[in-house]
Amino acid sequence: MAPDVTSEWDTHTAISPAGDGVFDAVLDPGWVVGGGVNGGYVLGVVGRAIAASVPAKPHPLSVSAYYLSASRPGPAQVSTRVLREGGTVATVAAELGQEGTTRISVLATYGDLRAMPSDVATTAVEPALPPLEECVPGSLAPEETRRIAPVMDRFDLRFDPACIGWATGRPSGNGHIQAWLRMVDGHPLDAVGLLMVCDALPPVTFDLGRPGWAPTLELTVHVRAVPAPGWLRVSHRTRNLAGGLFEEDCEVWDTAGRLVAQSRQLAMQPRP
Amino acid sequence: MAPDVTSEWDTHTAISPAGDGVFDAVLDPGWVVGGGVNGGYVLGVVGRAIAASVPAKPHPLSVSAYYLSASRPGPAQVSTRVLREGGTVATVAAELGQEGTTRISVLATYGDLRAMPSDVATTAVEPALPPLEECVPGSLAPEETRRIAPVMDRFDLRFDPACIGWATGRPSGNGHIQAWLRMVDGHPLDAVGLLMVCDALPPVTFDLGRPGWAPTLELTVHVRAVPAPGWLRVSHRTRNLAGGLFEEDCEVWDTAGRLVAQSRQLAMQPRP
Repeated sequence: MAPDVTSEWDTHTAISPAGDGVFDAVLDPGWVVGGGVNGGYVLGVVGRAIAASVPAKPHPLSVSAYYLSASRPGPAQVSTRVLREGGTVATVAAELGQEGTTRISVLATYGDLRAMPSDVATTAVEPALPPLEECVPGSLAPEETRRIAPVMDRFDLRFDPACIGWATGRPSGNGHIQAWLRMVDGHPLDAVGLLMVCDALPPVTFDLGRPGWAPTLELTVHVRAVPAPGWLRVSHRTRNLAGGLFEEDCEVWDTAGRLVAQSRQLAMQPRP
Repeated sequence: MAPDVTSEWDTHTAISPAGDGVFDAVLDPGWVVGGGVNGGYVLGVVGRAIAASVPAKPHPLSVSAYYLSASRPGPAQVSTRVLREGGTVATVAAELGQEGTTRISVLATYGDLRAMPSDVATTAVEPALPPLEECVPGSLAPEETRRIAPVMDRFDLRFDPACIGWATGRPSGNGHIQAWLRMVDGHPLDAVGLLMVCDALPPVTFDLGRPGWAPTLELTVHVRAVPAPGWLRVSHRTRNLAGGLFEEDCEVWDTAGRLVAQSRQLAMQPRP
């Protein structure tokens, strides 16, 4: 018998075409965090539907998601509408709904990263993360935390000890959290999977001593390369908490030393 | 007779309701740059229509624009659709079209910045710009440049001399351009005006020695405060040119020393 090589990520983001650019999906309860479903996972499901709507452009280059209401585990429909498809890129509008209520509205431009110029000129610096064995596994989180955030069981996360003070009541105040990440089943992620990785870590406001729910208004992800297999390094920072909001900048680096994704989200400041 | 206090910006972004969430506009030829109309200006026109569609939420908090085709001077229609309006924020989808062709598609969340918490915790640092009188006026640009870019006449721009080497064939290679900016008529800009400011400077790739047209795929602007009247400081940086694309991060600071807007765009790398 052939071994089962379907990853948990592929299973949880499976979609089936229902005609007219609509795709059916089922949001898995394993991605629950607090009162809803992880926004990065929901975006991954939408991202997969968009890829299916423009088969010649398999990779997200830029995806912007506006979060309208909390998603719940269970059936969902993704409706896609191709706004323009040219030779190099295609732009698509998409919405994910549940029982007639829109959860997120998305605009995205997809292309084929393998066909883009290979020229790289970066001044960005790889996150300085201690070796895996010196980092703090997410599995050490208290049982109570893990019960309200089953999403933590989707990943193998290893936090930089310098950025994990918030877990023991000593946040650094720098607005910085970084970690090694791979999926719990060890399967590598594709380019669409990076949409989820950009929203996988706890809110960076934890490191500012502001715990609590920080609802995302908007998340934009730019994908710049298909990630190499293996551990990803994920870094989140915020520089400006103002107007009741804060931005969270994320970088994802792969084992080949490439900055494979950059994202920024705008979230509501947690209530004191 | 009362003096005319209507600013050029207000005149150029004027919209008139045409019913069912549609607004008529006229794109002014004064914003032409090369073969099209400046994308920030077009976004400003859309931003004004969105504000009109949700009158209790006058300020853009987050606006994401996907550019589909080059806009031309002349009539345009903006269609808006309110996706959700709650007590604090409203999310709206909008498209600007000309003669049946969509130019840009936009998702946005608006609110009232005056009603948001005044708490500020920023680690962002104000751009180190020399005093106005030590900076290089945009009006010194060669006649030929100004002829293909009438948009330059909309602003009083004063470039940091350390970031203007590209104008004389000596780009710094740092991927950084910054300048003082105000409108040519001296009128202050409102929060919607910041959408345009984030796309007003020349592409930051000029400073990498890569001149040429860099078409924007996507631009997201976060507005965090209504700007104080007076000169704005605008800083553009890129850190990662890869996959045929580059990101351009912009910050806008006001005279009150506040980071009033942050933006990131993804653009196609100019052809060598």
